Amino acid sequence: MKFEVTILGSNSALPTTKRYPTAQVLNVLERFFLIDCGEGTQIQMKRFKVPMSRINHIFISHTHGDHIFGLIGLLSTYALQGRKSDLHIYGHRKLEKLITFQLEILETKKQYNIYFHTIFGQETQTLFEDDKVFVQSFPLKHGAMPCAGFLVKEKERPRTLLADLLDQYNIPIRCRQSLKMGKDFVTESGDVIPNKQLTKDPLPTRSYAFCTDTAPYKKIIPIIKNVDLLYHEATFLKTEAKLAKATYHSTSEQAAEIANEAEVKKLIIGHFSTRFKTLDEHLKEAQTVFENTSLAEDGKKFTIELDR
Amino acid sequence: MKFEVTILGSNSALPTTKRYPTAQVLNVLERFFLIDCGEGTQIQMKRFKVPMSRINHIFISHTHGDHIFGLIGLLSTYALQGRKSDLHIYGHRKLEKLITFQLEILETKKQYNIYFHTIFGQETQTLFEDDKVFVQSFPLKHGAMPCAGFLVKEKERPRTLLADLLDQYNIPIRCRQSLKMGKDFVTESGDVIPNKQLTKDPLPTRSYAFCTDTAPYKKIIPIIKNVDLLYHEATFLKTEAKLAKATYHSTSEQAAEIANEAEVKKLIIGHFSTRFKTLDEHLKEAQTVFENTSLAEDGKKFTIELDR
Repeated sequence: MKFEVTILGSNSALPTTKRYPTAQVLNVLERFFLIDCGEGTQIQMKRFKVPMSRINHIFISHTHGDHIFGLIGLLSTYALQGRKSDLHIYGHRKLEKLITFQLEILETKKQYNIYFHTIFGQETQTLFEDDKVFVQSFPLKHGAMPCAGFLVKEKERPRTLLADLLDQYNIPIRCRQSLKMGKDFVTESGDVIPNKQLTKDPLPTRSYAFCTDTAPYKKIIPIIKNVDLLYHEATFLKTEAKLAKATYHSTSEQAAEIANEAEVKKLIIGHFSTRFKTLDEHLKEAQTVFENTSLAEDGKKFTIELDR
Repeated sequence: MKFEVTILGSNSALPTTKRYPTAQVLNVLERFFLIDCGEGTQIQMKRFKVPMSRINHIFISHTHGDHIFGLIGLLSTYALQGRKSDLHIYGHRKLEKLITFQLEILETKKQYNIYFHTIFGQETQTLFEDDKVFVQSFPLKHGAMPCAGFLVKEKERPRTLLADLLDQYNIPIRCRQSLKMGKDFVTESGDVIPNKQLTKDPLPTRSYAFCTDTAPYKKIIPIIKNVDLLYHEATFLKTEAKLAKATYHSTSEQAAEIANEAEVKKLIIGHFSTRFKTLDEHLKEAQTVFENTSLAEDGKKFTIELDR
């Protein structure tokens, strides 16, 4: 029942030896999602023991190099490893062009299929969905560059049956599914036993939002409202607010303000400019506004625990 | 007067955390050449303190991903850093297609020019040449994939003037250049003083040859004959000789045999298959045939000293 984010790269455009460009892997109930894929992502996956072959869905926020240059290498590695399972890539239509052109020119022999799914930049767009988890994209504000944030969320769980009471009322197994769905139980004699008497509320759903690269953007607030964990870029400090504005990035303080307003439970800041050797100032600046902030660091894992 | 090779990546197709894919930087008399550019090369350059901005010539052996996937990232970084000086890239014509397509789609704004130079696969082709150094390519044997080796060599130095004797014969400064070029000196009275009396032999030229990816290929012997330093791929051990043959790679023993036959001074083996966790066997196998062998290791520097 894991919900875990592993940071593979925490830096902005120019990588350093300690902070690779953007990439993260999510393990959501054993579904492995890759978000962004900067240069060196496959090496970081090995370094941090990510089960590379279990990733079937790759979400790419936008087509700036520091978010995509590791993708062709990863796809080639999959080909060399003899991967057979389908791979789904979600991103701007330019991404498909870039990747298919390279695979073609390089005559990459692969035994697996790649399915590209275009992110159109609508208010929200459901990209992935199964019985337990969904992933939606939403637009960020990164100047002329179309850029998507991602919301990854568990679906509502079925209600929890109270085993003792089921026995007491002698409820047949065939009726239990509808109880889980919240329906009342009607006895053979026609008596109605309210659902609430036989079940208890399910565990709350967990959620994660990923927002990079972007200027602070109020329109995302209702979408990311109350998430357990928010990753928001904080390329600069407030002393560089002008530069942040000019380049459609955020300061650490602005990231924290978004977290505050969206009433998220925890904030991770990342996508740091190469100019910063240490990040203490980023953390301090954010924590002044939103205390429960952590720094993204390559290799760091953030787990959202189930609230039992 | 440096002649130094820095290994940035020593592994074959699938990178590991300790062995990045192929890339090396040469400092030849303060000319910085990059040979191959696997994924993560720019990060390795930072790690090993290579003066990235001083590289003006990039030589790419062939268009397999593990030799080129770091190139677009490096070019983008140069653009972001505001590089202005020309950059020359030497490689197969596919490389130009790949890179220009990406730069175009990504709308990379750059203030520097990239000049692509096609390697045609002739016996030898001079790619770079100035007053002191030249770089030639020559074909390797890598199956259907056109693949080039590189010979980097100092040009013959001018003869060394014997200062004492110049004074003794009262030889004017304007005549000294022709002495350096090996000409005799004729006095005003018509006497000929032989060049050998006024000069001594220059220091010997130094040379480096880079050979990856390739099956053992005898045709390269006359080209790489007597080089000071030979880098030759040794993807496999002799126990995998069949696999080496099938994939147009070399074993450690075969690399050493080439070194032996070409009578080079020193051999570096590299491009190791990911299957090998340690490389002691590679070294042992090569040294049985050619003793002065070293393993390529990421970050290791090999200096060719001037033989004074």
